[in-house]
Amino acid sequence: MTRYQQLADILSQRIKAGLYAAGERLPSVRLLSSEHGVSISTVQQAYRQLEECLLIEARAKSGYFVRCSSNLPSLPATCTHAQRPVEISQWENTLAFLQKSGQEDVIHLGVGSPDLSGPGLKILSRLLSRVSLHQSEEVLEYDNIYGSPVLREQIARLMLDSGNHQSAENIIITSGCHGALAIALGAVCQSGDIVAVDSPSFHGAMQTLKGMGMKVIEIPTDPVVGISLEALEMALDQWPIKAVQLTPTCNNPLGYNMPDERKKALLTLAQRYDIAIIEDDVYGALAYQYPRPPTIASFDDDGRVLLCSSFSKTVAPGLRIGWISPGRYLDKALHMKYISAGRVASLPQLAMAEFIKQGHYMQHLRRMRRQYQRNRDIMTGWVMKYFPPNTCLSRPQGSFMLWVELPHGFDSLRLNRCLLPLGVQVAAGFISSASGKYRNCLRLSYSKPMTAEIERAVQKVGKAIYELLAEDEPKVAEKQNQS
Amino acid sequence: MTRYQQLADILSQRIKAGLYAAGERLPSVRLLSSEHGVSISTVQQAYRQLEECLLIEARAKSGYFVRCSSNLPSLPATCTHAQRPVEISQWENTLAFLQKSGQEDVIHLGVGSPDLSGPGLKILSRLLSRVSLHQSEEVLEYDNIYGSPVLREQIARLMLDSGNHQSAENIIITSGCHGALAIALGAVCQSGDIVAVDSPSFHGAMQTLKGMGMKVIEIPTDPVVGISLEALEMALDQWPIKAVQLTPTCNNPLGYNMPDERKKALLTLAQRYDIAIIEDDVYGALAYQYPRPPTIASFDDDGRVLLCSSFSKTVAPGLRIGWISPGRYLDKALHMKYISAGRVASLPQLAMAEFIKQGHYMQHLRRMRRQYQRNRDIMTGWVMKYFPPNTCLSRPQGSFMLWVELPHGFDSLRLNRCLLPLGVQVAAGFISSASGKYRNCLRLSYSKPMTAEIERAVQKVGKAIYELLAEDEPKVAEKQNQS
Repeated sequence: MTRYQQLADILSQRIKAGLYAAGERLPSVRLLSSEHGVSISTVQQAYRQLEECLLIEARAKSGYFVRCSSNLPSLPATCTHAQRPVEISQWENTLAFLQKSGQEDVIHLGVGSPDLSGPGLKILSRLLSRVSLHQSEEVLEYDNIYGSPVLREQIARLMLDSGNHQSAENIIITSGCHGALAIALGAVCQSGDIVAVDSPSFHGAMQTLKGMGMKVIEIPTDPVVGISLEALEMALDQWPIKAVQLTPTCNNPLGYNMPDERKKALLTLAQRYDIAIIEDDVYGALAYQYPRPPTIASFDDDGRVLLCSSFSKTVAPGLRIGWISPGRYLDKALHMKYISAGRVASLPQLAMAEFIKQGHYMQHLRRMRRQYQRNRDIMTGWVMKYFPPNTCLSRPQGSFMLWVELPHGFDSLRLNRCLLPLGVQVAAGFISSASGKYRNCLRLSYSKPMTAEIERAVQKVGKAIYELLAEDEPKVAEKQNQS
Repeated sequence: MTRYQQLADILSQRIKAGLYAAGERLPSVRLLSSEHGVSISTVQQAYRQLEECLLIEARAKSGYFVRCSSNLPSLPATCTHAQRPVEISQWENTLAFLQKSGQEDVIHLGVGSPDLSGPGLKILSRLLSRVSLHQSEEVLEYDNIYGSPVLREQIARLMLDSGNHQSAENIIITSGCHGALAIALGAVCQSGDIVAVDSPSFHGAMQTLKGMGMKVIEIPTDPVVGISLEALEMALDQWPIKAVQLTPTCNNPLGYNMPDERKKALLTLAQRYDIAIIEDDVYGALAYQYPRPPTIASFDDDGRVLLCSSFSKTVAPGLRIGWISPGRYLDKALHMKYISAGRVASLPQLAMAEFIKQGHYMQHLRRMRRQYQRNRDIMTGWVMKYFPPNTCLSRPQGSFMLWVELPHGFDSLRLNRCLLPLGVQVAAGFISSASGKYRNCLRLSYSKPMTAEIERAVQKVGKAIYELLAEDEPKVAEKQNQS
């Protein structure tokens, strides 16, 4: 970390701790410079960063002041859904998103891929190379059907951080968290079954539900505390729901952490109605708070939670290493793994086990968490600067996704069509819903270093939104006149 | 290749070409030694190898003679199955097989893993290492949803050898052939559907059918020409069959190549009844004949064949690289891939593309084909030497699997229980059937170098078979007395 970043961190902590109150004037540049033994320009850089993060504001000729938090944009609304199971659509739109996200000539602001430029990944590449040469027999031969024993051992240790006491025997390595979710659904449900989900929800899990011929019932989800337990209970009373599938920690796309008490209450509800919980914890280790929040699985005492995770968001998605800790469904989950993919490639597993064992994983994680938290504030600032003032925004407590809600009637698919010639794309909100809701929403990722190029892309998105809203205004007015 | 192996190959070719007739005396050791300019002991070694391969026999004080092919053991019988769809059982036994096959203290003669000790794999390990370091960005990032474009390009070229003219766009990379089969089944069928299969059949595909809630109808299959088209037609008349799934080239476990004309006739039948064909070609490139037999897919003109294959048997299973060329089911297959595993690990794909591009793949394949063909003859010789004389044996035309049929009533599961304390296992035949048929059969693999250790293991299996049969004899006699 550079000097100015260190200073910015110190100041930001003081502001968050309330040492400087909202509206209060901050120490002068000169004073801070002598107090911390750094140059004037270092202090100026630190203040500039805090400005970008919306923590402070500069007032002409008066200095820097702590921003009032009421300046932050409103939160997105909790959707009130029709409470009935639906078939899942949106494959074509999801596919278009997946295909665009790999294009080299497009800055895709919606892709859920982590930053891969950090020093930790150089170490990982060297480990992959070393394992290729020195463990070639293990690399080439069929993997253990459960996955590499050394890696499962390491994952069992990591899981202690989220309150899970699982032995390596209860962990199965999968092809990413996506593979884990498919295994979990296949282990618990059959074609035609109904699954309750948080909403908005991860588009990949949604498509897996579709592919397996299941129906979903979308439960209203609060952008701060998560899935509505009251609405879920009503749905459980009314429909033969087999499982609830959700991302309660560092939710994708809303970014909230469901409070521990609500996690426990959800488990109690699942026990009462005897349903399984499929818990997606793929972003859980990227929570900004320390220690990270516990999983629902950590409270589970009768094996009904199937915990799914991976290293795709914390380390690198190209490795395709995920895992499932399937509780009482271990045998069924193993069968589902065997029939869907056979085994998982050995080389990335062996290299990853070394990466964790040698301590690089935890170091990398700490660095990434700090980077993503800083990036969240910067991205929030850019959205506030370039998007219309009535834009609603999530306040992520972890991971690297921002959920943006625009006025009702706005069409994010049309936005993407306008952005394509400009070489920019966002994730249209409606792939996050079984039935194509959230058309007026979009997802932005802030994992990559927040360069001027990304700022320009966000600016382009903002400009296109203004233009689309202006186009719509006369129509809306016309409609009002007609009625 | 050593000198004696070269000489053995020359002689073997002459015998197969009919230059030396069955029963004819071969040139003396002294004559061959001067003719080929090699030592006496080299000729003796060459003759010994031909003896092991059952091509020649030594007669005391008379020299070496070409064996009569009628000396070869009888072929296994074609099973006559009850022609009705059944639910699939055998998961517990398949799991036991999979778990035992990885144990280090067991010589598992039944495992379908290729030889990994050849020089080609050293080159592959170096390529894996190089790609890890020099293409780290591609290795770590999300792969293209279809799979690596460079690898798909190379696979499209390889597929020309089996008569398939497919562009790279019609190929999807999967997690091994197992992943490809799961995708094919998911793309074509739904839970509850009926699928016709060859019998005996690949246990993994069988378990995938089970996991997806499908029923199978096992079609009688000849050990030389493959699935009975007459029986299949009868089944198609009687039941609403959605697809036929089979391994027509280098069949696992029977080793036959279905003749081209029968492949074409099967396709015509599929067209008439409008069903899909799921063609498992995972061993196809290991056919001993040159050029390799064409696939059914190569005759397909309306996109109803889903061709599944991988590098697990030709190169190394730990890479987990397979592919599917799904014909008209491309979109559905892509959805099935996305929902079951997300993507496939990038590193093995990129290294494999280089391996093919640099010519190492074809070289490796040629070497392996020769090795497996030699090993087949050696393993056949050992089985004839150590197993009871009424043992029936397949005559594989490719790959590295031998199917052994013992007298009716023999129990290969009991055999494995006897062999476990001796540190030896075979693949019990009944995991190759949906309903646990082939209890009296077993599968032996001859991929690994045919060392004295392997010979001893085969000898132990033979001894245990003799003992079990002897135990059963009084019981059989008793039963006959009672009746």
